[in-house]
Amino acid sequence: MLALRVEKKQLRVREVEQPHQTDEALVRVLLSGICNTDLEIARGYAGFNGTIGHEFVGVVEESDNKKLRDQRVVGEINAGCGRCELCRAGDPRHCAARTVLGIVGRDGAHAEFLQLPAVNLIPVPKNIPDKHAVFTEPLAAACGILERASIAKTDRVAVIGDGKLGLLCAQVVALTGAATLLVGKHPEKLRIAAHRGIETVSPNEAAKRQKQFDVVVEASGAAPGFQLALDLLRPKGKLVLKSTFQGSTEIDAARIVVDEISIVGSRCGRFQPALDLLAKNAIDVDSLISEEYSLSNGVKAMDRARTAGVLKVLLRP
Amino acid sequence: MLALRVEKKQLRVREVEQPHQTDEALVRVLLSGICNTDLEIARGYAGFNGTIGHEFVGVVEESDNKKLRDQRVVGEINAGCGRCELCRAGDPRHCAARTVLGIVGRDGAHAEFLQLPAVNLIPVPKNIPDKHAVFTEPLAAACGILERASIAKTDRVAVIGDGKLGLLCAQVVALTGAATLLVGKHPEKLRIAAHRGIETVSPNEAAKRQKQFDVVVEASGAAPGFQLALDLLRPKGKLVLKSTFQGSTEIDAARIVVDEISIVGSRCGRFQPALDLLAKNAIDVDSLISEEYSLSNGVKAMDRARTAGVLKVLLRP
Repeated sequence: MLALRVEKKQLRVREVEQPHQTDEALVRVLLSGICNTDLEIARGYAGFNGTIGHEFVGVVEESDNKKLRDQRVVGEINAGCGRCELCRAGDPRHCAARTVLGIVGRDGAHAEFLQLPAVNLIPVPKNIPDKHAVFTEPLAAACGILERASIAKTDRVAVIGDGKLGLLCAQVVALTGAATLLVGKHPEKLRIAAHRGIETVSPNEAAKRQKQFDVVVEASGAAPGFQLALDLLRPKGKLVLKSTFQGSTEIDAARIVVDEISIVGSRCGRFQPALDLLAKNAIDVDSLISEEYSLSNGVKAMDRARTAGVLKVLLRP
Repeated sequence: MLALRVEKKQLRVREVEQPHQTDEALVRVLLSGICNTDLEIARGYAGFNGTIGHEFVGVVEESDNKKLRDQRVVGEINAGCGRCELCRAGDPRHCAARTVLGIVGRDGAHAEFLQLPAVNLIPVPKNIPDKHAVFTEPLAAACGILERASIAKTDRVAVIGDGKLGLLCAQVVALTGAATLLVGKHPEKLRIAAHRGIETVSPNEAAKRQKQFDVVVEASGAAPGFQLALDLLRPKGKLVLKSTFQGSTEIDAARIVVDEISIVGSRCGRFQPALDLLAKNAIDVDSLISEEYSLSNGVKAMDRARTAGVLKVLLRP
């Protein structure tokens, strides 16, 4: 089968053997999405070698769980050991022995087939088209904000970063009823949020609103975004760090102490809330799709995804 | 009166006019304590000019509040505007217009007299000697950990830094019943905690216990302490940042996101819990006193406080 792989820091599409391990489900990929994490991995993040990709919708071809067979599914990307305290509590996202689809020790979704434990797979309601379902993973990550920070309707929330993740985060936050501001540099991207009734501003404009926000979500993945987040937060405010930065970031720790800021990291979210939102058509994901490529053009698709102004690039095997 | 002052980055003891503003209480200082923040201010932190010092015990000489007159008191160091939302809610610690004793816009405690709003002053129970009462402010700061992080008896907590603040923090945390580890480089300081039944180790030894702690308190004020804290925390663990670093610190933001760490800044704490602990003699502060100087020798005392191995240096006017 074809797969988009990072091997010895080289990105290429090549023929590999179809997965055949029998105690996991075999999924035929219908559509996969390129995430910024894929771009980071191609640059060396996480030291991963193998098939990349962790956003997908597919059809179960083989599984011990008969109910899953032939079902259209999305899949939680963390596969736990199943035995540790965290896994037994039903949340393998921090299992120390976990593999992560296309990120840690497990071939990913930019391929014709992938494997995941049956327990990771969730059937997709019929009314969600493939090109929406493929957003379940990143939307779950956006919904993960609400697992880490309780947002009240009276809160003032700023989301920093108008990329794919920022646009999803802003929409999720706005659905809580909290006054939501999206901060970004790209008028054409900000417009997507503005169409959903979300207030948008440039970073320079945002910087005038120092200490006015109860919660700030940093989804730009860049050091200036981190600094701006600290500027915008009121004392005792909460900063949700959403994107995985590569390398280290300089922070003003005294500011965190003096203003008694809380910072919470947020990575993956649960899939069900995301599927619920997609089923209700409550989130605009169509506007986030820039282009679709065939898997065989995966390297070109990655180049495209890396281009300024481009949002989600999809791959079809 | 004599006062220890930072003026144009110069530290000196000199004669200044006794305070005489009439709507605040006038306190005759009995004893004051040199804090690391004083040393940082002398190096330029916070850009403060004036009399430094914010840890004290004194006697009220003048006050509109007759009940306070002639009382032995300690004083909360943040003086709010009294009108904003925070002040009206009874917590001026984050009032945007606040002054802070010896730190922001208000002459401090290393002097013969100081002024504070009467509402900031709290009488000291008779059974607490002056040399214990002078620890109320730093002990309140240590107790402030519990305002920012709920610590359960089943939690594993590490405190990084065996300075004055670290030793107070470790004792406060240990009183919650949680298994407490103090990490430090100075055997003679660690011994103070060990005498209270607290487990102690060197940073190198601590580094072997990666991801084993539910809560880590960073009280070393140094970048390596911050890194070690991230190493020690389990996924979804909580880092309490206790010391005010000067300048910026490099942090691995990806680590915070991937392990979904929470970081909370903690600055000042409420005084009453600290006074309660001192009245019960529940905290060993005697072992933290290195030396006492007369206020007239304040510059020498500051030099001494800056010396490696020295803990609390007290000043007596």
